[in-house]
Amino acid sequence: MDLAKRRGFIWPSFEIYGGVGGFYDFGPLGSLLKNKIIQKWREFYVLNEGFFEIDSPSVMPEEVLKASGHVDHFVDAMVECQKCGAAFRVTDVVREATGKDIEGMPKEEMEQFMKKHKVRCPDCGGEFGKIFDFNAMFRTTIGPGSQRVGYLRPETAQGIFVDFNRLQRHARGQLPFGVVQIGRGYRNEISPRQGVIRLREFTMAEAEVFFDPDDPRHPRFKDVANEELALWLVGDQEKGKEHLTEVTAEQAVKKKIVCNELMAYYLAITKRFLLSIGITAGAIRFREQTKGQRAHYSSETWDAEVSTERFGWVEVAGLAYRTDYDLSSHAKSSGQDLTIFSADKKKVLCHVVEPSYGVDRSLYCVLEHAYVEEKNRVYLRLKKDLAPVEVGVFPLLNRDGLPEKARKIYEKLKCCGIMTVYDDSGSIGRRYARADEVGTPYCVTIDHKTMEDGTVTIRDRDTTSQIRVMLDKLPEILLSLLRGEKEFEESSVN
Amino acid sequence: MDLAKRRGFIWPSFEIYGGVGGFYDFGPLGSLLKNKIIQKWREFYVLNEGFFEIDSPSVMPEEVLKASGHVDHFVDAMVECQKCGAAFRVTDVVREATGKDIEGMPKEEMEQFMKKHKVRCPDCGGEFGKIFDFNAMFRTTIGPGSQRVGYLRPETAQGIFVDFNRLQRHARGQLPFGVVQIGRGYRNEISPRQGVIRLREFTMAEAEVFFDPDDPRHPRFKDVANEELALWLVGDQEKGKEHLTEVTAEQAVKKKIVCNELMAYYLAITKRFLLSIGITAGAIRFREQTKGQRAHYSSETWDAEVSTERFGWVEVAGLAYRTDYDLSSHAKSSGQDLTIFSADKKKVLCHVVEPSYGVDRSLYCVLEHAYVEEKNRVYLRLKKDLAPVEVGVFPLLNRDGLPEKARKIYEKLKCCGIMTVYDDSGSIGRRYARADEVGTPYCVTIDHKTMEDGTVTIRDRDTTSQIRVMLDKLPEILLSLLRGEKEFEESSVN
Repeated sequence: MDLAKRRGFIWPSFEIYGGVGGFYDFGPLGSLLKNKIIQKWREFYVLNEGFFEIDSPSVMPEEVLKASGHVDHFVDAMVECQKCGAAFRVTDVVREATGKDIEGMPKEEMEQFMKKHKVRCPDCGGEFGKIFDFNAMFRTTIGPGSQRVGYLRPETAQGIFVDFNRLQRHARGQLPFGVVQIGRGYRNEISPRQGVIRLREFTMAEAEVFFDPDDPRHPRFKDVANEELALWLVGDQEKGKEHLTEVTAEQAVKKKIVCNELMAYYLAITKRFLLSIGITAGAIRFREQTKGQRAHYSSETWDAEVSTERFGWVEVAGLAYRTDYDLSSHAKSSGQDLTIFSADKKKVLCHVVEPSYGVDRSLYCVLEHAYVEEKNRVYLRLKKDLAPVEVGVFPLLNRDGLPEKARKIYEKLKCCGIMTVYDDSGSIGRRYARADEVGTPYCVTIDHKTMEDGTVTIRDRDTTSQIRVMLDKLPEILLSLLRGEKEFEESSVN
Repeated sequence: MDLAKRRGFIWPSFEIYGGVGGFYDFGPLGSLLKNKIIQKWREFYVLNEGFFEIDSPSVMPEEVLKASGHVDHFVDAMVECQKCGAAFRVTDVVREATGKDIEGMPKEEMEQFMKKHKVRCPDCGGEFGKIFDFNAMFRTTIGPGSQRVGYLRPETAQGIFVDFNRLQRHARGQLPFGVVQIGRGYRNEISPRQGVIRLREFTMAEAEVFFDPDDPRHPRFKDVANEELALWLVGDQEKGKEHLTEVTAEQAVKKKIVCNELMAYYLAITKRFLLSIGITAGAIRFREQTKGQRAHYSSETWDAEVSTERFGWVEVAGLAYRTDYDLSSHAKSSGQDLTIFSADKKKVLCHVVEPSYGVDRSLYCVLEHAYVEEKNRVYLRLKKDLAPVEVGVFPLLNRDGLPEKARKIYEKLKCCGIMTVYDDSGSIGRRYARADEVGTPYCVTIDHKTMEDGTVTIRDRDTTSQIRVMLDKLPEILLSLLRGEKEFEESSVN
C-alpha cells in the first residue's frame, strides 16, 4: 500500500480535506491498470462470450429499487454507541472485537452474540444500544422540490433488468443470451475501515445471463468441462472446516454441488479470468454462501475469493442464481409483460445467473500478487498485457546527443501505440528501479554505442537480463514481446 | 433517433416505469460506440499528449464543492407556474416560447424579458411566479444520519484539483503537465426536454492543463500552428452576426483573439479530435462565451460547437481558462499549500486551461453525421475505427454445410480480436441492410464456392462492391482494412 500510494496507484480521496472513509482515487498508474483489467474482462465477456454491453444511469428512481427489493432489503444491521454516538456496522464491530464473521446471522442472535462477547465501542469503550437497520443506498431527489426520490444504484444489474424487453429484441429472442454492464455501484457504508476492500463507491463488472429455466445449458460447456474448481461448501464451513472440495466443472454439475451448467460454466470462466490477470490457481477458491449470507434475490451464490496477505481471503466476484426474482418483480411493479417465447414456443419468464465482479478489489489483489521483494530490488511481476507503463526509454547520460536521440525513440514508440515513459533523472540503476516498482516490462537504454551503430539495449523486468537490437526493428520487437509472441532471447528477436 | 432506438444505440432509461426525463441508456451498439469514442479521446490525450489519467469518486463531500464555488454558483434560474405548479428552467421556457437564448442574462433582465414576451406555462398557460435559484447538484448524505452532506460531482475536474499535490509530485514538478478524467458528471436539470443533449447524468472527458502563468507556451505548438480555426467572436454574436473569423492557431494567439498558446493549442487538438471521429471541418466552430455565459471560474471560454440537423449548433466541448481559481480556493479552504516551484525557482500557483468534452453529445453528433440515406438504402458511414460491429459473417444459405462453415469463420475472427456478428436470418440483402444500418464496414459471405475453392466474399459498406479472397488470408486482410492499412481493391488485398 505504501508503494501503491507513493507511485500513484491508489490514493485516499479528498486527502487535503482530511479524507472521507470508503472513498479512494485511482492515480495515473492505478487508472491505467484499472482500464486494462476492465479491457481484459471485456475480452472474456463481450468479445468471447458475445454478451451485449449496456451503459445505464447510476441514479435510479425509487420505483425501480422498490421493485428490486433494495429499498426494503439492502440494509445493514447497525449499532450506535450510547456514550459517544459513534455508529458501526454490527458485523464490522464484531469482527474487530472477536475475529468472528457473523454476516447473515438473524438480528436477535446478533444481539445475544454481542452481549455474550461484551462487544463495546472501539472508540470510547461505551455500551451499544439496540441493533437497527440502515438502508445502505445513497438517497437523493431528482428535479426540483422533493417529489421524486432517487437512489444511487447498489448494483448495475437493475439497469439491465428494466431494459429486458429491448434487450431480448436485440438478441432476437434467442436464449440463452447475456448482457453486461461495467460502472459505478454505491453502498453507503456506516463506518468503512478496510481501505479499498470496503468502498462506498466502487466499480463493478456485472454479467446477467438470461435463460429458459427448463434448459440451463451452455452451448460451449465442453470447453470448460475439465476446469478444476476448488469449492468451499456450506457443510464444511458450518463444521468450521477449511477443507476445499476439488472437482471439475462437469463433476460439480453431475454431483449437484452446483445448481446448473450455466453456473458451473461461469465459475470456470471466473477462474480463467482471475488466472489471466495474474492470480495463481492456488490462491483462488469458491465459497458457497449460507442461506443467511445470500442476498434477498439469490437461491444459490458462490463467492470467488482470492487469498491476500493483508486482508485474508477477499471476495472479488459473486456468482448468484437470481432465478426469475428480478424480472418477475419488475413485471409486477411496472405492469409490463417481461416474458419471452422459448425454443419450444412456450412463454417463459427467464431465469438469471449473474457473475458479478468487483474491479477495485480485483485490482488490489493483482497488485498484491504481483509484488515481489528480492534481496536487492522490488518489482511488480504484472502480466505484460496489464502493465500500466509498457516501455521506459532512458538516455544513459544527459549529454552527447543521447537525450535528443532518446526523445525521438520515445515519440516513435508512442506513435506505435505503446504506452511509453521517458526518464532521464538520476542514475540508470535508479531509473531501472523506478520502472521495476511499477511493473514496466521493458526498458530501452540509449548509449554511446547507439550513436555509433544504431543499436539499443532492451532490459527485461523479470530477469533483468539485456539484449541489444537494431533501432529500426525496435517497435516491432517490443510489440511482439508485449503481446507474448516472442521470447526474450537474443536469438529470437534478431 | 428512430434508428438509434430500434437498433440499440440509445434508449430512454427506465422506460417500463414510464421513463424519467434527462436519463438515457446506451444499448449494446451505443456502448460499443461510446467506448470507441472514449478510446479515441484517450489516444489524443493520454497516449499522445502524455497526460495522466485519474479516476476519482462521483460522490464528493460538501467542503470540496463549497470551495470550488459550486454550492453557491452552480445554480439554474427557475420559475414555477402559479396555476399548475410545473417548474421550468427560465432559459428553456424562454427558448421554447420565443426562440431566443437568454443564457447568462442577469435575473432582473430575465424577469423583464419574460414579462415583455408574455412567456406563460407551456403546460397549462398559467402565469409564472418570481424567478428563483435552484442548485443543480444532486444532494445526498454520506454515512448514517445526516451529518455529512455530499453531492454528485457536477464536473470531474474537482477530483483532479484536490489531488494537485500528489499529481505534481507524480509529474516531478515539471510544468506544464496535464491530467484527465473520464467519468460521470451530474446536473439535476429542472425539466429536461432535449433528449440526449440535456442529460441529468452524462459522461465527461476532461483535461486540466497546469502551467506557470508566466509561461503559457506549449512545447509542441508548432505542430498545430497552421491549423485553421473558425471562431465566432463575442463581438459578432452581440451584433447578431453569424460571421466566423477564420484564423490559424498561431494567428489567433498573435492577434490576441485567444488568451494564450495553450488555449490555442487545445482548440486545434479539439478540432482534430472531432475530425477523427467523423465530424467534417465545415460543421465545427468555436464560439466565444460572453461574460454572462461563462462559468464562475472562467475568464475566457470557447465552446466547440457541431452543426446538427435536429438541434442546430450543439456544444460538444468547452475550453475554459480557469486561471488559478480552483487551486487558490482549495488552498484557502483546506489550509494546504498548493503552490509549486516553477522552472526559474519561484513559487507559483498554477493556472489551468481546461478542455472539457461531453461524450454523449459527441456520440449523438457522430451518429447524425454518419447517417446516409441513399435511394435504395440507409447506412452509417462511421469511421472504421469507431464502428461498433467490425465484421458481419453470413452463410448465403441455411443448408449444405454453409452455416457450420460460417460459424467457424465467425469464431476465428473473434479470436483475432475482431468484433464480429453472425447473422443467418432472412435474405442476404436484408442482412446487408441490417449491417449497413449500424455501420458495419465489412461483411463476409460464405457460399457454395467457399466449399469448393476456399474463398469468401468481402463486401464494403460504403461502395457495396465485393471482392473474393482466400479464407486463410481473411483475418489478416480484414485487420489491414479496418486499420486503414489497405485499400478495398481486389489487387491490393490478394
